[in-house]
Amino acid sequence: MFKLKKQSKKSKARLGVLKTARGEVSTPFFMPIATKAAIKSLEAKDVKDLGAEIILSNTYHNLLKPGTEIIKKFGGLHKFMNNDLPILTDSGGYQVFSLAKFRKIKGNNIEFQSHIDGSRHILSPKKVIDIQVTLGSDIMMVLDECVGLPTTKDKALEALERTSQWAKIAIDYKNKLNTKSAKIKKQLIFGIIQGADYKDLRIRSAQELVAMNFDGYAVGGLAVGESSKTMYKVLDYTVPELPENKARYLMGVGYPDNIIEAVKRGIDMFDCVIPTREARHGRLYIWKGKPDVTKKNFYTTINITNAKFAKDTKSINNTNLKSYSKAYLHHLFKTQEPLALRLATLNNLKFYLDMMRDIRRTIKNNKL
Amino acid sequence: MFKLKKQSKKSKARLGVLKTARGEVSTPFFMPIATKAAIKSLEAKDVKDLGAEIILSNTYHNLLKPGTEIIKKFGGLHKFMNNDLPILTDSGGYQVFSLAKFRKIKGNNIEFQSHIDGSRHILSPKKVIDIQVTLGSDIMMVLDECVGLPTTKDKALEALERTSQWAKIAIDYKNKLNTKSAKIKKQLIFGIIQGADYKDLRIRSAQELVAMNFDGYAVGGLAVGESSKTMYKVLDYTVPELPENKARYLMGVGYPDNIIEAVKRGIDMFDCVIPTREARHGRLYIWKGKPDVTKKNFYTTINITNAKFAKDTKSINNTNLKSYSKAYLHHLFKTQEPLALRLATLNNLKFYLDMMRDIRRTIKNNKL
Repeated sequence: MFKLKKQSKKSKARLGVLKTARGEVSTPFFMPIATKAAIKSLEAKDVKDLGAEIILSNTYHNLLKPGTEIIKKFGGLHKFMNNDLPILTDSGGYQVFSLAKFRKIKGNNIEFQSHIDGSRHILSPKKVIDIQVTLGSDIMMVLDECVGLPTTKDKALEALERTSQWAKIAIDYKNKLNTKSAKIKKQLIFGIIQGADYKDLRIRSAQELVAMNFDGYAVGGLAVGESSKTMYKVLDYTVPELPENKARYLMGVGYPDNIIEAVKRGIDMFDCVIPTREARHGRLYIWKGKPDVTKKNFYTTINITNAKFAKDTKSINNTNLKSYSKAYLHHLFKTQEPLALRLATLNNLKFYLDMMRDIRRTIKNNKL
Repeated sequence: MFKLKKQSKKSKARLGVLKTARGEVSTPFFMPIATKAAIKSLEAKDVKDLGAEIILSNTYHNLLKPGTEIIKKFGGLHKFMNNDLPILTDSGGYQVFSLAKFRKIKGNNIEFQSHIDGSRHILSPKKVIDIQVTLGSDIMMVLDECVGLPTTKDKALEALERTSQWAKIAIDYKNKLNTKSAKIKKQLIFGIIQGADYKDLRIRSAQELVAMNFDGYAVGGLAVGESSKTMYKVLDYTVPELPENKARYLMGVGYPDNIIEAVKRGIDMFDCVIPTREARHGRLYIWKGKPDVTKKNFYTTINITNAKFAKDTKSINNTNLKSYSKAYLHHLFKTQEPLALRLATLNNLKFYLDMMRDIRRTIKNNKL
């Protein structure tokens, strides 16, 4: 399901193709996020027009609203949200730990209360697979335990051991379902490496998961409060443990520099709320000159709500929004017009997707 | 600038073409509203794709934000908001009376304070023309005094006389500007008939304005609290006073039934916030069967936030949103996703624009 196309001569960066039930995706790639089965202010076709080849949606949010019963009526998330791109769904575990009102681990179950209405729910390694079968995810993630950083080695070890145990339950269960359904067999399943910032734990976690033979491997437990330096150090000793012929996914990352440094360390897949969330606050990602991710300071960010843009007749960008001025977008934010969010999101996602295209170009040319 | 194409054999309804500097528009037509230089959640090109041939923007709002100085830098509203459809702008008078914090008429000036920040501004018949020259409006409206209904005859008479006086100042000023600028000459100017629900006053107002030879005539002072019956009665005795070879515009109307009844009385142009405002609250306009405005109850409205739509897998409509289900739009409203507003607005404007198309079809066939 993953084909390595090229290895850069300058770094561990690599080009590849990930095959999913709904089409091939060129790596390295970035997944725009449709948290609640919708990308902020955009239709799925808009995101496809921007160049996205895959999106991400959150199991936790879909489980609470609209709920799996309704999504099942539609035969899955794709039909429900009118999207034909492949979808990766997370396991919901991260949100249970970061968003839910209350949570308790009992054996292999996590009991929690919805942050929306306090309703009680249970997630388990098997149930998370069942939910993602219902969602029709092209890539499903196993339930893991993610701890924030910094953390003690004891806590990191406990989370690692639970994560490995749950991963084993999940892959065995998925393999059993594969024999019963050709459709489920086409759904990819990824394991998630934990171990905080402890080298021996990360290596152990990676080795335990690799032994289980997942379709791909995610590095979890990063972008949880650590410095970029720590993030890169963890990647430096974790990625080499992963097989070349499987896709590698760094969850929840990140800023452009983080993505490029991770690509250089052999990561193929990314997702992050940054482009959509910052759009909401008027922060725009802008190329400095012609796209070239190998240049230092290849981009800048501006806050379009700043008074200095009130009279700026220049285009928002030179690509999809060249017919719209900065002054107009400033005006839309200042007058709280809903079109503001749409234009800002279109700008930021276009920037991120173009950045990934430029990353692939520079790997191809051995420049990255 | 207006060409009458056909008169229905069944009513006073008529087909025509209004020629503006930015293209011809088939009448009867409906103008989606871009109050603050933006149509709620839509790009101008989206509205064009829906079939709109002209839009409306509000002088009062543009004057306060972003202000004429900025719009002047762009050479007008079209460039500022990235829209190539013709734009009709109102005079701002109606908003000064309905929105501004404080207002005072001194001679030919209206002094008022912004409802946003309390800043002081002045409108006058000439200044309103100057502003609309700066906006680059394809159709400009004269400053009038609009009184709510019911009102006394004394008040209605006073407003009528002031409106006629201001209309004369405006048309004389516009004619003077025409001799200096070919661009301004191409901007159409419409007079506004007042007179509340007093037959003699409406007839007098119409006659006074017709004598001034405007490019078109608006019926103002309706949709201000009166019953539909009163509205139709006023049209019954006002419209016959207007020349056949000029377009007739009923300002701020209305619900589908109001529009159809007004078309039957010879009205050619409409604008209203209903489709966009009701979209915001989840109220959707839906055809009952195949579009046919001559049928009784040809449409219905639904409130998509109603619980009964939570599991409704049927399409939102059979035209531009047939790939989206009612359950999905319900979900978007319930989770406050910004895409909710976009889809609801796309539905309602499509309904209104298709209704106008069907009105034109049925006039052509002598069915209306």
